Formats: sequence, C-alpha cells, structure tokens
Amino acid sequence: MSISQHHEPHRRGIIFILSAPSGAGKTTLWRRALTAIDELDLSVSLTTRGPRGGEVEGVDHHFVSEEEFKARWARGELAEHARHFGASYGTPRGPLDRAVREGRDILLEIDISGAKQIREKYPRDAVGIFVLPPSFEDLEERLRHRGTEDEPGIQRRLIRAREEAREWTAYDFLIINAEVDRSIAQLQAIVLAERLRAARQREGFAPWKS
Amino acid sequence: MSISQHHEPHRRGIIFILSAPSGAGKTTLWRRALTAIDELDLSVSLTTRGPRGGEVEGVDHHFVSEEEFKARWARGELAEHARHFGASYGTPRGPLDRAVREGRDILLEIDISGAKQIREKYPRDAVGIFVLPPSFEDLEERLRHRGTEDEPGIQRRLIRAREEAREWTAYDFLIINAEVDRSIAQLQAIVLAERLRAARQREGFAPWKS
Repeated sequence: MSISQHHEPHRRGIIFILSAPSGAGKTTLWRRALTAIDELDLSVSLTTRGPRGGEVEGVDHHFVSEEEFKARWARGELAEHARHFGASYGTPRGPLDRAVREGRDILLEIDISGAKQIREKYPRDAVGIFVLPPSFEDLEERLRHRGTEDEPGIQRRLIRAREEAREWTAYDFLIINAEVDRSIAQLQAIVLAERLRAARQREGFAPWKS
Repeated sequence: MSISQHHEPHRRGIIFILSAPSGAGKTTLWRRALTAIDELDLSVSLTTRGPRGGEVEGVDHHFVSEEEFKARWARGELAEHARHFGASYGTPRGPLDRAVREGRDILLEIDISGAKQIREKYPRDAVGIFVLPPSFEDLEERLRHRGTEDEPGIQRRLIRAREEAREWTAYDFLIINAEVDRSIAQLQAIVLAERLRAARQREGFAPWKS
C-alpha cells in the first residue's frame, strides 16, 4: 500500500504520535497497529513502573530502575520524558532518529507532555493523533473494567482525563474510539494518507524530471 | 467509517480536488470513487465539448453550448472555468457551496488552472490531490490506447502533460497511479484521514465539554 518503491531512499520516516486520556484505549490501538498497518514500527518506551498483568519486557515497555532512567536521560538518549502517576516514562531517541533517516515510519504511544516534546524536536516529521472515548461515562467504565486501580486511583485518573481531553485541539487528527476495528481503520487511513503528502515526497522524487 | 454522528451539524464539507495530466487515469479514479468511498458526492462539470464514446449527460459532464456556458459564468454560477484543447470546462458553484455548508464531502475532477481557482475560493475546505502515471512512457501508452485522438492530438497532449506533471508540488497529496485498485485505496485513505483532521472538527465539537 505504500509507494515506497518510488521514494524510499529519499522520503524521511514519519513519527506518528498517539495520545489519549488514560482509559481511552490507546494502548490497544497502538498494539493492534503493529499487525494491522504495513511497514509501521512501534516505539517501545522506557518506564520505571512495574509491569501490569501480562505486560512483557521489550514489547509493552522497557522496565528500568529510576537510576537507569536518569542515567539514560542524562546521556541524551531519550527524545522525551514525563512523570505520570508517580512513575517516569521516556522514548528512546535512537530508534526515532534511525526511522526518520531511513524513511521508515514509527508509532509512539505517549502522553500529552511527551508529545509536545517530540513535536518540538521533530517538527517536520511528527504527526499527532489524539484518541478520545465516545463519552466521559465510557471512559469511567473502561477504567473500572480494567481493574488495575483502586477507587481513589480511578478518581484521580478521571480528574486527570477530563483535563487531558481538552488537549485534542493541539493534535493533527482526532479519533473517537467507539469500536476498535473502526479506530484501527481510521488510524490506518491517517498513516497511508500522510505517506502520500506531497510535501513529504518533495526531496529527490522526480519521476517526471525528463 | 465517518464519525458524522458526532459532528454532522457542525463540520464543514470538504472539497477534494483530483488533478492530473491527460492520460493519467484520473477520470477512472473519480468515477470509481463514487462507489468505493462512503458518503462522497461527485461534482459533475459543465463542458462545451461533445460527449466521447459512452459518456452520459449529467453523469460524466453536463454538455452545454458555448452560449449557455458563457451565460452561466456571467451569472456567477461557476466556481472555476478553464479552456482545454479548444473547449470550455467549468464547475457549478451551487453544489460546492451546499456541500460545504451541509457538511457533505465532494470530489472534483478538474485541471490545474481550475484547481487553483477552487483553492482560492475555498481555502479552508479544498484538499488537492495530484495523480501521476508511473512514467512518461506509461502515459503515452494510455493516451494511444484510449484512441480518442489522432497523432497530432496525442503529441499535443504529451507536450502539455510534461508541463502539467510539474505542478504536483502545489497539491496536498500525490498518488502514483500504477494500479487502479491501489490508487482507489489511497484516495479513500486521504478522504478518511482528512475527515479526522482535528482542525476540521473544531467548530461545535465538544463531547467533553462537561
């Protein structure tokens, strides 16, 4: 579906950023995107929190100590970092730089503050996608259903989610995540369309130069 | 696939413009889009040229006399008009204005000069998509295969096509039309993605205002 044969040596990779309030379902989308969307890598973030049920090292996150996290940040190895409910999260810089340079596309699942840092560092290459659940009630139900938080934890997340939800206007695209299949199709459409942007193909693309 | 239930009264319709050098296959794409893409109307243009084999009044074009064409332009009923190989072509303004106002999307197949006029008249609402054949040789073959032109006509079209092909950088998206099915999928992705643009959903969209 990509037209990579025409521009692969020249087109820069695109950094797709997926952000959402907690409980909007963005982690499911991010994981499903790996199989649903051709030629899209996932960026696996560092975190200092422990694995939740079923999470796998190097697949869902790289689980590291606070000390290691700080050392990597100090060495400039992270493209962004943020604190979130008492834990640190960060995106390794190397895979992003390589993806952009080699013309491969990569999908990040990061919070709003991290997304701002990425857009500042990669203004040409970052595309922001915000995910909202269809309603606040839906979000509350998802958070309770997940069962990873006690009641005060759920309340804190709900308050934060209401604040975070307002940030959607700072993103390029908005997906209302009512059904996962439809949302994946929408995410796929965004990825394909961005690959076809004339502005991304300008460098070195000249099938008609003769 | 649209999220129209959330924003239909508020989102403005999008005017998708399809342009290409003669022989790039854009008319086939435009026609196929009607069945392939949900909730997308086609804009049927006026022309003063006669119907080619199989073309139907009101479906492929509205075939009108030079006098009627001039009268409609004088009354301000056309959003753009252009001369092309001795005939006039124009886009009726009413359907575009209604589509934008009512939040429906519409697809135009128009030439480069017409596309410029539409973008100037509808700067917020127009999205330009340029279609190129994979190579100049491919274009030549398509023109000969169509069999609607004599040799001097083909030569004139080829010269013009080389000039027109350079205009792709002025468009938002570029589709390399190697296989129709793939190009239709790409066109569909562009339409879906543009509907999800946060900037288009800003007015009146507030599922989270509470």
